[in-house]
Amino acid sequence: MKVITNIQDLQASIQQVKNSGSSIGFVPTMGYLHEGHLTLAEEAGKNNDTVVMSIFVNPLQFGPNEDFDRYPRDVERDAELARNVGVDILFIPEVVDMYDGKQSVTLSVIERVEVLCGRKREGHFDGVVTVLTKLFHLIQPTRAYFGLKDAQQIAVVEGLVRDYFFPVEIVRVPTVREEDGLAKSSRNVYLSKEERREAPSLYQSLIEAKNRIDAGERDPDSIISMISMNVQENTSGKIDYVEAYSFPELAELSRLQGEIIIALAVQFQQARLIDNIIISVEPEEDSNV
Amino acid sequence: MKVITNIQDLQASIQQVKNSGSSIGFVPTMGYLHEGHLTLAEEAGKNNDTVVMSIFVNPLQFGPNEDFDRYPRDVERDAELARNVGVDILFIPEVVDMYDGKQSVTLSVIERVEVLCGRKREGHFDGVVTVLTKLFHLIQPTRAYFGLKDAQQIAVVEGLVRDYFFPVEIVRVPTVREEDGLAKSSRNVYLSKEERREAPSLYQSLIEAKNRIDAGERDPDSIISMISMNVQENTSGKIDYVEAYSFPELAELSRLQGEIIIALAVQFQQARLIDNIIISVEPEEDSNV
Repeated sequence: MKVITNIQDLQASIQQVKNSGSSIGFVPTMGYLHEGHLTLAEEAGKNNDTVVMSIFVNPLQFGPNEDFDRYPRDVERDAELARNVGVDILFIPEVVDMYDGKQSVTLSVIERVEVLCGRKREGHFDGVVTVLTKLFHLIQPTRAYFGLKDAQQIAVVEGLVRDYFFPVEIVRVPTVREEDGLAKSSRNVYLSKEERREAPSLYQSLIEAKNRIDAGERDPDSIISMISMNVQENTSGKIDYVEAYSFPELAELSRLQGEIIIALAVQFQQARLIDNIIISVEPEEDSNV
Repeated sequence: MKVITNIQDLQASIQQVKNSGSSIGFVPTMGYLHEGHLTLAEEAGKNNDTVVMSIFVNPLQFGPNEDFDRYPRDVERDAELARNVGVDILFIPEVVDMYDGKQSVTLSVIERVEVLCGRKREGHFDGVVTVLTKLFHLIQPTRAYFGLKDAQQIAVVEGLVRDYFFPVEIVRVPTVREEDGLAKSSRNVYLSKEERREAPSLYQSLIEAKNRIDAGERDPDSIISMISMNVQENTSGKIDYVEAYSFPELAELSRLQGEIIIALAVQFQQARLIDNIIISVEPEEDSNV
């Protein structure tokens, strides 16, 4: 595995890979790797000749009150994990190189963003699409891998790629979970022991929602109320949101139908957890016919 | 020469070219080709295995009072000219395909834009970088060719490519001129006979500016006044601007020094003409030393 920190070195390596006709699977990360990231890399390895992973804690996607400075970093451990999982090129650029001097052109996300986490994280997805545009151009991936845990990110990235015809296939990879259902996340380390015991309720509530939809429920408000009550009863966390939308358009629904996402965010003492399920819902039978 | 109007067909053709390892020279145009465009295509042919030209009158870069509807179009003639000059793929997409549905991510130019034509054409360069980002992704050129006649466009595009690490080399091609010095342009057809006789004064004024700078003049205001008077005396056109900046940063200068652009725009009855020179100016000797 090559570890590259310099942009010119990366461009030279990528050019070599492209010239050889190899496909490139790309896994963008902010480091502090967990099984979720490693699953993305494994998926990338299955369908591509070369796997490139980036580690870059992107300041532009953190808000003024968010955890850029205390976002966990452990590059040596990350490098070992990446090597073990078959990453060929590990790209760890410097902030000053990725944002070199005065930027003259900005990217803004204007759809799929005023919902879920985007509503409360002004500018977050602008930062995401900005850094991904840079990384896509530097790495020129055949396929890029994103976890469905951050489903809004996938929705936004699919919008970016669609709007601008990026020559890359976005691969949606299912959320990796602990045995008790808790979605893996770098932020789980901030949970207290008690909170860690409570946290699986988030996913359990989503599964219960799916069961009720399977049984015929089509009213979004009823599903959202059930989840909210469930989380309130079973955790000490404070609900940021529980919402349901079409996916990946993230448009509001009067009835649950088609490809939908049900997503939630819960603030614990030191960690804000998110989770979601994406399900395909049959249209309801019209009882009047 | 292949003429392609469908985006999927283009993507398939480009993939074929890329797989063969060929380099791609790209010439984006709005059609109604003149020698300026053909020179770009010839330059592209000299250094690339495959030449792709696009013809797309991009609605997003026209303002509400600009000439989108009456921008001249003649695709059959263009195709013949393109074929004769060695274009391999002529891409003529539809507006509805290039702007398919609701765009979720927008591009905005925030530097190099509040000067020259950009100041009076709000949103124009947003439209330019938007369509070029799409075209760069669709065509994946090794090199893209732009005429120095629209020098601000080159400055903005170089900013775009630099900010986002587009894997493309921007090639600046000198302005093609009529024998009397008038810069070639699709809009020249709108000049009256009298205006056409006057129009070479624009370039002559710029050459006179260069001569004075060569002779030691370093005061921007003095140069700009000279050009303005010269154009006013020798044409019936109305000056939009005469300006001097560093290039390609387009930053203001208190003294003329380094790479600079001197640019002007003059409104005639039915045509607005632009021209510029880019010159390298020696630092002035300090007479006090």
